Amino acid sequence: MNTFDFGIVGLGVMGRNLLLNMADQKYAVAGLDLDADKVLSLTEEAHSQHRIKATTAVKEFVELIKQPRAIMILVPAGKAVDAVIQNLLPHLDKGDILIDGGNTYFTDTDRRYTELSAKGIHFFGMGISGGEKGARFGPSLMPGGNKEAYERLRPIFESIAAKVNGEPCVEYLGNGSAGNYVKMAHNGIEYGIMQLISEAYDLMKRGYELDDTTIQKVFEDWNNTELESYLIEITGHILKKKDTDGQLLINLISDWAKSKGTGKWTSQNAMDLEVPLSTVDAAVAMREMSKNKLERIEASSKLIWNAEQTDTELPLAIETLKGALYFSILITYAQGLALLSKASKEYNYELNLETIAKIWRGGCIIRSTVLEDFRQAYAKNGELKNILLDDSIAKTLNENQSNIRSTVQFAVQKGIPIAGLMNSLAYFDAYRSEKLPTNLIQALRDYFGAHTYERTDTNGIFHTEWND
Amino acid sequence: MNTFDFGIVGLGVMGRNLLLNMADQKYAVAGLDLDADKVLSLTEEAHSQHRIKATTAVKEFVELIKQPRAIMILVPAGKAVDAVIQNLLPHLDKGDILIDGGNTYFTDTDRRYTELSAKGIHFFGMGISGGEKGARFGPSLMPGGNKEAYERLRPIFESIAAKVNGEPCVEYLGNGSAGNYVKMAHNGIEYGIMQLISEAYDLMKRGYELDDTTIQKVFEDWNNTELESYLIEITGHILKKKDTDGQLLINLISDWAKSKGTGKWTSQNAMDLEVPLSTVDAAVAMREMSKNKLERIEASSKLIWNAEQTDTELPLAIETLKGALYFSILITYAQGLALLSKASKEYNYELNLETIAKIWRGGCIIRSTVLEDFRQAYAKNGELKNILLDDSIAKTLNENQSNIRSTVQFAVQKGIPIAGLMNSLAYFDAYRSEKLPTNLIQALRDYFGAHTYERTDTNGIFHTEWND
Repeated sequence: MNTFDFGIVGLGVMGRNLLLNMADQKYAVAGLDLDADKVLSLTEEAHSQHRIKATTAVKEFVELIKQPRAIMILVPAGKAVDAVIQNLLPHLDKGDILIDGGNTYFTDTDRRYTELSAKGIHFFGMGISGGEKGARFGPSLMPGGNKEAYERLRPIFESIAAKVNGEPCVEYLGNGSAGNYVKMAHNGIEYGIMQLISEAYDLMKRGYELDDTTIQKVFEDWNNTELESYLIEITGHILKKKDTDGQLLINLISDWAKSKGTGKWTSQNAMDLEVPLSTVDAAVAMREMSKNKLERIEASSKLIWNAEQTDTELPLAIETLKGALYFSILITYAQGLALLSKASKEYNYELNLETIAKIWRGGCIIRSTVLEDFRQAYAKNGELKNILLDDSIAKTLNENQSNIRSTVQFAVQKGIPIAGLMNSLAYFDAYRSEKLPTNLIQALRDYFGAHTYERTDTNGIFHTEWND
Repeated sequence: MNTFDFGIVGLGVMGRNLLLNMADQKYAVAGLDLDADKVLSLTEEAHSQHRIKATTAVKEFVELIKQPRAIMILVPAGKAVDAVIQNLLPHLDKGDILIDGGNTYFTDTDRRYTELSAKGIHFFGMGISGGEKGARFGPSLMPGGNKEAYERLRPIFESIAAKVNGEPCVEYLGNGSAGNYVKMAHNGIEYGIMQLISEAYDLMKRGYELDDTTIQKVFEDWNNTELESYLIEITGHILKKKDTDGQLLINLISDWAKSKGTGKWTSQNAMDLEVPLSTVDAAVAMREMSKNKLERIEASSKLIWNAEQTDTELPLAIETLKGALYFSILITYAQGLALLSKASKEYNYELNLETIAKIWRGGCIIRSTVLEDFRQAYAKNGELKNILLDDSIAKTLNENQSNIRSTVQFAVQKGIPIAGLMNSLAYFDAYRSEKLPTNLIQALRDYFGAHTYERTDTNGIFHTEWND
């Protein structure tokens, strides 16, 4: 009894892989799942050097773990987390630490944090990114909550996390639900980048009418450039994967893109915080659009555009597209990081954006070489309001402007939807507009609803009787 | 006692004007406001033929009204509505009707509906649009709730509502919170159209570098074309309004566009219902962007685009822009109406979209000639999933495609942000895509997260070990 270093509740893909990752690092880990098959399959996957014990019995599980205990919950976000907590509670002691490693909505974490603090239990919301492979061999971990409690967890988390230049991709991020919030924003950015990649793919396929082999080669090549990133890399893998009969698998996959809601949450919360997140909004909208297959089939025969031929030279076109994608990916990160900056103030997280850029460099789904550029920008100026204001990032964006503009114009001419690329450009052009035409919107609001306005030449609140 | 036909709580701009509107129609109306100044100013505004009595005393107010009573609440949405209800309740009798005429979030109406039903009080959420002038001389009214109770209110509402071809712009819309929901969607569309108008204005001002007088004339002219609508009309008024010193007022108004949240609610709820509402999302994002004045000033000196000269001939350009605006306004309505279609199923509102198009033709802020086109489309096919699938609307959109495409390309070349126009085009191009590149997104999700996918050639759920 009480000899295991760590406990994990929920032995699905993520829980099992994290447990095995810890066991690889010589930790003794106890596992709990109500499903006996999952307990069995974990036991089968463990090898002789592992110190693992899995069970379906809550009391036995808790008693296995050293006090004060550290137990991570990896079950679907929502009611399942509350149910697990209720089952564990009678067996826990003061000072024990519970860690929710799921994609939990941050206000749920705030609620549980408060409830469990009253019982003397430390509660942690920790974002985990890296998918099943990341969990097994090195994820990016985003913990938030009580800092002293985190210090007890630090050795084990640092040992299992991905490493970049020897630095582990885990660091204490901030108060309360900071960990879940940062992971949510991470996923929002992930939605945006995936949408952008799919648009680049579409432009090559429907726009330039390249064959599948050439497109695959482009993504493979791009991963050796400034676009180097996990999502570009695996796109290269996906596009060469063949089905059993030798056909390319990508061409047999339905275009209905599902989602678990974290991108939606990010967009919705950004609206609450009044932070423009338009590339992510577009990604959410396009996943919704992907569902309406029958309507789209009907529309495709009614809404017709006869695209003109273009005479773009292909090598030039691919370089242009690359620049457009890079530009838009930078804008997507900028939106997500600006959201974190605002959320940190709003929710008192005390986030350090340099730290976040640092732990995102490895392990997580949005890892990419640009995160080191962002880390350096924040190292230079920790108060940077938006990454677009960093001189080096601004220079890169300026240099790629003609690429994004040409690409949008090409897609418009071809009739190919590029909501992500367009919204990235619109964000950029709006952000660099000292004066927006929103003065007209405010005038309209005052005209029909007496909502008042401010003036540029004097302070105060004004209302006009427009028809006098 | 008990001789007044109707009661109104809250004598701000909207409440006072609705009360006077009813009094004009020979109804005897009682008013309640805790602010004695508002009571006084209403009394002063009333003329001798009006049967009006206003008070600050709740009990006196309730006792003035004929039983079963009809009382409308017009106070800011949220806690104030609950407070008013609590103050009124002890004085009400079973069978009385309370109507919330504010921009209340629809779930609040559902909650109050349930609570008050248990006490025998009928509760109505009713959207009211038309601003202060509309309230005074004929608004569009959007009531939802108990249908039998509505029949008692019908004569008074029909008498005060705007009329189009003699038909009043009010009709019973559906169950529960249907009235508030329809008003919310109305406001979302309003956000979208205002954003589009501001972009057309910006393109003329910064893009074609037209002088203020010419731009004003364009909007005035446009109101005599298929663009005829309240918002285009008042834009023409606004752009000629002069400040006391003779300068055009529009040029002195700050570009910080405020909001009361109804556009945001629409976008957020559309995401919950998985309905793409991208033009409205863009409008919400651009209002947020308008707030960041200091950041935009800094960015304007760092993010530089040297726009090339263009040689577009001006009369041609204005016609093109007109078509682009018209195209995008149609798309904005399409998004809002598709949202209502989905919401009707999700919340059991049993909405009739022909009725909604009909009552929006007059009185409300988004009234325009196109609403009659929509009404006719729904009259032909009540099951129309999206207005873009109507042959006549599809034809109009097809005819304007070259206009929207040229306009977007021009703006991109000029570096002018046009998030609303772009998102309208992207929505259109995505909607008419039988196959979207979202198959790649789903493949990526399966690659890193084992989220599975469906196939085009066979049914079932599949997962691939992509690295084998």
